[in-house]
Amino acid sequence: MKKDVEIAQEAKMLPITEVAKMLDIPSDELEQYGKYKAKLSYSYIKENMNREDGKLVLVTAINPTPAGEGKTTTNVGLSMALSKLGKKTVTTLREPSLGPCFGVKGGAAGGGYSQVVPMDDINLHFTGDFHAITSAHNLLAALLDNHIHQGNKLGIVTKKIVWKRVVDMNDRALRNIVIGLGGKGDGVTRENGFDITVASEIMAILCLASDLDDLKERLSKMVVAYNYEGDAVTAGDLEATGAMALLLKDAIKPNIVQTLDNTPAFIHGGPFANIAHGCNSVVATKTALKLGDYVVTEAGFGADLGAEKFFDIKCRYAGLKPDCVVIVATVRALKMNGGIAKDNLAEENLEALKAGSSNLIRHIENVTKFSVPSVVAINRFPTDTEAELELLDKICEEYGVKVVLSEVFAKGAEGGMELADEVIRICEEGKADFKPLYDLELPIEEKMEKIAKEIYRADGVDFTAVAQKQIKELKKLGYDKLPICVAKTQYSFSDDAALLGAPTGFRITVREFRVSAGAGFIVALTGSIMTMPGLPKVPAANGMDVLSDGTIIGLS
Amino acid sequence: MKKDVEIAQEAKMLPITEVAKMLDIPSDELEQYGKYKAKLSYSYIKENMNREDGKLVLVTAINPTPAGEGKTTTNVGLSMALSKLGKKTVTTLREPSLGPCFGVKGGAAGGGYSQVVPMDDINLHFTGDFHAITSAHNLLAALLDNHIHQGNKLGIVTKKIVWKRVVDMNDRALRNIVIGLGGKGDGVTRENGFDITVASEIMAILCLASDLDDLKERLSKMVVAYNYEGDAVTAGDLEATGAMALLLKDAIKPNIVQTLDNTPAFIHGGPFANIAHGCNSVVATKTALKLGDYVVTEAGFGADLGAEKFFDIKCRYAGLKPDCVVIVATVRALKMNGGIAKDNLAEENLEALKAGSSNLIRHIENVTKFSVPSVVAINRFPTDTEAELELLDKICEEYGVKVVLSEVFAKGAEGGMELADEVIRICEEGKADFKPLYDLELPIEEKMEKIAKEIYRADGVDFTAVAQKQIKELKKLGYDKLPICVAKTQYSFSDDAALLGAPTGFRITVREFRVSAGAGFIVALTGSIMTMPGLPKVPAANGMDVLSDGTIIGLS
Repeated sequence: MKKDVEIAQEAKMLPITEVAKMLDIPSDELEQYGKYKAKLSYSYIKENMNREDGKLVLVTAINPTPAGEGKTTTNVGLSMALSKLGKKTVTTLREPSLGPCFGVKGGAAGGGYSQVVPMDDINLHFTGDFHAITSAHNLLAALLDNHIHQGNKLGIVTKKIVWKRVVDMNDRALRNIVIGLGGKGDGVTRENGFDITVASEIMAILCLASDLDDLKERLSKMVVAYNYEGDAVTAGDLEATGAMALLLKDAIKPNIVQTLDNTPAFIHGGPFANIAHGCNSVVATKTALKLGDYVVTEAGFGADLGAEKFFDIKCRYAGLKPDCVVIVATVRALKMNGGIAKDNLAEENLEALKAGSSNLIRHIENVTKFSVPSVVAINRFPTDTEAELELLDKICEEYGVKVVLSEVFAKGAEGGMELADEVIRICEEGKADFKPLYDLELPIEEKMEKIAKEIYRADGVDFTAVAQKQIKELKKLGYDKLPICVAKTQYSFSDDAALLGAPTGFRITVREFRVSAGAGFIVALTGSIMTMPGLPKVPAANGMDVLSDGTIIGLS
Repeated sequence: MKKDVEIAQEAKMLPITEVAKMLDIPSDELEQYGKYKAKLSYSYIKENMNREDGKLVLVTAINPTPAGEGKTTTNVGLSMALSKLGKKTVTTLREPSLGPCFGVKGGAAGGGYSQVVPMDDINLHFTGDFHAITSAHNLLAALLDNHIHQGNKLGIVTKKIVWKRVVDMNDRALRNIVIGLGGKGDGVTRENGFDITVASEIMAILCLASDLDDLKERLSKMVVAYNYEGDAVTAGDLEATGAMALLLKDAIKPNIVQTLDNTPAFIHGGPFANIAHGCNSVVATKTALKLGDYVVTEAGFGADLGAEKFFDIKCRYAGLKPDCVVIVATVRALKMNGGIAKDNLAEENLEALKAGSSNLIRHIENVTKFSVPSVVAINRFPTDTEAELELLDKICEEYGVKVVLSEVFAKGAEGGMELADEVIRICEEGKADFKPLYDLELPIEEKMEKIAKEIYRADGVDFTAVAQKQIKELKKLGYDKLPICVAKTQYSFSDDAALLGAPTGFRITVREFRVSAGAGFIVALTGSIMTMPGLPKVPAANGMDVLSDGTIIGLS
């Protein structure tokens, strides 16, 4: 089979005006970025907000393994298949981060014959949204340090500054730094650090804001530091809101591109799925629902993190009512969950598959708790045996969930017809009746316990002394009625990455809380979470190039 | 008179496809960024490189004062006037930097009725060129630190790393930092710092590269550090060239926008005028010359820095043959050069004007040394008296140069007709016979002496012990045949900002050399040069906003 980059470069793209026409968007309402990318005008979005919603389908997955599951690929392929069946479909995805592209990944726009294009642009600067977020974030940081340098009227305690800087690059050397060295004119000396741009609270805000006014409201609430009285100092206090909003005025408009077979794709926003909620923007999803019959969207990592946050944070804030959930798995990944090493996945192993399926089953059960019906999509690999696939079928049948084979990687839309049929059946049946897992009015501890016990199946939650103190502070500062965003390893239901399958008999330890007051959630940190990746020994960047005829090498 | 932002927001912009049509550019060859911005396709530029050139006009100025001279405004207004006279004209400008916009400046796209639009976009992210440069620069920095972290096969001496990081923000706290703190996985601990993006060598390269292949060649030559043997370690050695070029593949295409009366404007690149050459891109200027009858371009700071580098670096490398130079001055600024304080400029003062005119006269004489004829454009202020203007006329007459009043700020094209007439007369007369000031084969010391004596009128040049050692090293490493880029205060011909007018009897001290081997020049540092600005006590950002109807507040 051809490489992803070859397939992408051979794609017969339509002008983006033609793609938009499929959703009856007049070309006047597009702000084009080249021939194949556009932003949708703010006024058009507003005008259409009273239309009826289409069906909303969430693509989520089992806990990820190094074997790869293909969530984005399934999202894209399912959208193409729905489109082929005559449904006006929009695929909505997160924007890839530039940093990891130069590290190990080399790109993130689907794979094989289920990709979004122009792949190279989407993986590189795209329409500049991430750069706008980086600029807004670092403007606030500069205004903050300048405020202290110029006299510190707000009484900010430099050791209590919680706003770092960001760069969209994997740069481990910037994790822990000391700034403000040099002379008197060179700022105040203090410890600081850089996160990768996707970890910025502004990224989460961009993805949760309903419109420009809401964006500004949320930006102004962001906590950047605490003062000598222990009160929160916000971006609003630094008079930074307007300038940041100005930098983000285009970034809040959803981006339209297309799949390999020209299905419209809204790719917009991309917050971390650990310290943030890991979903594409509310504006993109809501707009897509107004314009399409079917909207396929995704959430980061496995369903324990991605789907839970999609439901409890994104759907709750945006008033979304999902109709169907697709849980993506592979036989290989399930066998890894059953204890098989990566090198031995090609061999049939029914026992390991059965053991590892416990992971899938738990995700199926969990989705049921939000009262949304689901289907399991198995991304088929050539090494999967008939016996293995039959076994999976039988296991899932017990839970009333159908298992469908997906071959969208190798065959595009054609490989996703069965999945599309089942998704349509579920949506038309209309049994979904979404409700979030917990009530926001509950105390922080109880919200956290509910997620840990009902989703992760932990015996309970331990809060460190630091975390306990923070709970009191959050309550005092009035931040306790927000939803919880758990930052946890994506590899296990537990907070121990090594516990695969469906672990039991463990407890979750919350070591620290952080408040994202603008985004509107409390982050509960379990274990150490990486917010600035590093580059590997041989970075993907070393193999990249662009030739003078436009040929691109090394992206995928 | 209305505010700049009001005039800009009331502009009757044409769709950018219509603007391009004035230069016979087919709309297929445009890559649109919204309705009013576009990049010109790489293939179209290549196809048209064999056409005849139009006339090239450089707009430069006297040494800047806090009174303001209006170089960009004159550039734009002159272009509008030429266009009104039926000449197919392109105005070519540098892109404004985002950082200063939030500090004191609040924007940089001309002023009054001589502006380029869409002003807000040009001042903010524009088409993302600066973000692409920031990304490429920081990717190289991350690859460099990662190389050392992963084993340092190239034998880089961490104390001899010359590649810093960049951010397009005024952030004094990042000038001097320590990176790589934390644990073993968090990189190598060392001193480092951030410059503002316009100070990146990649910015200078983008502006001097003739095409993508030349860009890659120049990127690969950039010196990032020295190894234990004292040899230069380049971006090519780090295998970073291809990935950086990939990030810059769109940034090298010129951007097309328009003036308030729809004259085409190419705004592309914006290197510092001290540590770099301070001109817009060669690709933009050359392409404009192929498509227009008249191309009006500018160079940073006064003519001692801007015009000299335009001639000796940009024109030399690009093979450009300028036809006419416009030297911009104001009566107010000349009176400041004559010793009058900023608060007393409204009063008539013929004596001060006469004294300060020495600054203008020296610039006139200097331009003559490059064998290009010139005209003086006086940006008229309401406080200028008839007697003052007459005196100026008389002074310049002695030097065979006409003085023309420009009122483009208040009247747009109409205010620049006389200037346009004189520019056309000079260009049609065809007396220009450009030649650079010095031969590249001369030793570094002699090149520097030639600039210092002939342009600055210094008695000679002193090289510190450090600089003398560096001259030897540069020769050993083979970098001594490059042109010299002097980093000097813009406020004086000398290296002392307080010496206004036309100082004599001084010497220039070069305290340090740096090589920009990719851009292709040696930077001679005289005095301390700021490569990362700070924010003022009340940053312009505090007054900025965007309202939900799209109204923008605080940019100008």
